[in-house]
Amino acid sequence: MSFQRVAIIGLGLLGGSIGLAVAQHLPEVTTTGYDRYPATRKRAAERGLVNRVCETAADAVREADLVIFCVPPGAMGEAASEIADALPPGALVSDVGSSKRAITKALNEALPSHTVIPAHPVAGTENSGPDAGFATLFHNRWCIITPPEPTNLLLLSQLVEFWEALGANVEMMDAEHHDLVLAVTSHLPHLIAYTIVGTASDLEEVTRSEVIKYSAGGFRDFTRIAASDPTMWRDVFLSNKDAVLEMLQRFTEDMTALQRAIRVGDGQALFDHFARTRAIRRSIIEEGQDDARPDFGREDHGTT
Amino acid sequence: MSFQRVAIIGLGLLGGSIGLAVAQHLPEVTTTGYDRYPATRKRAAERGLVNRVCETAADAVREADLVIFCVPPGAMGEAASEIADALPPGALVSDVGSSKRAITKALNEALPSHTVIPAHPVAGTENSGPDAGFATLFHNRWCIITPPEPTNLLLLSQLVEFWEALGANVEMMDAEHHDLVLAVTSHLPHLIAYTIVGTASDLEEVTRSEVIKYSAGGFRDFTRIAASDPTMWRDVFLSNKDAVLEMLQRFTEDMTALQRAIRVGDGQALFDHFARTRAIRRSIIEEGQDDARPDFGREDHGTT
Repeated sequence: MSFQRVAIIGLGLLGGSIGLAVAQHLPEVTTTGYDRYPATRKRAAERGLVNRVCETAADAVREADLVIFCVPPGAMGEAASEIADALPPGALVSDVGSSKRAITKALNEALPSHTVIPAHPVAGTENSGPDAGFATLFHNRWCIITPPEPTNLLLLSQLVEFWEALGANVEMMDAEHHDLVLAVTSHLPHLIAYTIVGTASDLEEVTRSEVIKYSAGGFRDFTRIAASDPTMWRDVFLSNKDAVLEMLQRFTEDMTALQRAIRVGDGQALFDHFARTRAIRRSIIEEGQDDARPDFGREDHGTT
Repeated sequence: MSFQRVAIIGLGLLGGSIGLAVAQHLPEVTTTGYDRYPATRKRAAERGLVNRVCETAADAVREADLVIFCVPPGAMGEAASEIADALPPGALVSDVGSSKRAITKALNEALPSHTVIPAHPVAGTENSGPDAGFATLFHNRWCIITPPEPTNLLLLSQLVEFWEALGANVEMMDAEHHDLVLAVTSHLPHLIAYTIVGTASDLEEVTRSEVIKYSAGGFRDFTRIAASDPTMWRDVFLSNKDAVLEMLQRFTEDMTALQRAIRVGDGQALFDHFARTRAIRRSIIEEGQDDARPDFGREDHGTT
């Protein structure tokens, strides 16, 4: 491993998991960390998320050869500005943000004389904060790296090596394509989940306690991702606005078509649509991207 | 237990699970079963889903004191007609359908001289067919009974007792309210999941293999319920059309509001919405309606 001192800015789910994963897989590497919230720094130190929790971002990066920003997309630029004077000239700058074009721009503007190679590990849970991280979060998950043109090939290969050491499979694509792919596989699903959970909470005719009670009919699935960190998701939608709005437009068209089929009683159109969506689930399971057990392998939680 | 001979019409996920649950919890009760598909009857016999698989629906109900229709909503009326002449006069007629007004009407029209008390166990998985059922499906799940007015109180109490014996908690409401509650907790979520999975399959700019590969970003959650039985769901939407269209209209309004917030960059509106949907998840977990572990307790399936 070429990086010897990794600084992690932001010690929530992602930052904390990177720290723990480095400790597990790359014990020779030293990690420093910083979070703008004192309570998070305190908890990070208690859990040992990094070798040393620092009181300022500048202190955390002073000797780093790799700094990874693990803050919400909208906070990347400001976080990068805070370390501009302290970061060694040869250090690589990366991140874990869910949108890449806007973040790449923000990091490059704040750190114009450093090499920036953005990354996005497609991994997470609905939990957030310094207690949410765990060392195996990246095992067999994809990490998408979006190298700039031209790119520093040595630093790029070191970053690939770093993520592979943490258990991830690395894929590369340009930032624009990343933003389109993630708009459909991640951003739109979150937006829809947030919407329907809000819709269900606001009904007058159906009480909230009924919604909760009968949520096993399907609704509860959506509540998981709608419990994700609101700050991060606000920033994701704002920083990937164009691609999200484009996908949302297509979703709305498709929903309108199904709505019409229901209204006019076109059972064949409904059946044809519902039959073809099964194949995707099968492929996801075959490629090891989800738990094959029915109901995600949920335990019979009702009995507890 | 007052029912001694239970006939199950339709031997898929629900019918099969009832048969297995009766064998486990009410071994003194005899079960007969019928399915219109010969292959399903054969498999049901092999798995022992009921004590006796019959070659006609009439044979299955000839000595029954309770018959439960476990066929798609749109097939209830025809299935009930098939047994009208064979069903003993005092036998109770029930079902497990996901919509109640249309099914109640269909069953009453086909069996005008029998007592019909509809029921809906809010339980299931994304799997269907004779291999999908299991004896504990109803454990600590809600079963909603929608008694007609006036109702036969003795038969009603026996039906309650039956579902409680299978491990369910019973709740009663009128059919109209049931259809509204389930439209939001089950039907709308399925419609949305089917829609987004379809939208993602049809993109030109993002390949299907990319959608599958990066589905852990949120999309894969939707693919589970979009893998549910297409025939059943076609019928659910057609048989609960009014309530589904009403809920869909509200969902669309809420989605349009969030879409506008993204377009104009109103981060506060997004944050406020996303922050309040977290509370619902918490309540669902507190009430034992979902697995409290992160990510539904999915195993690190990627390592297999």
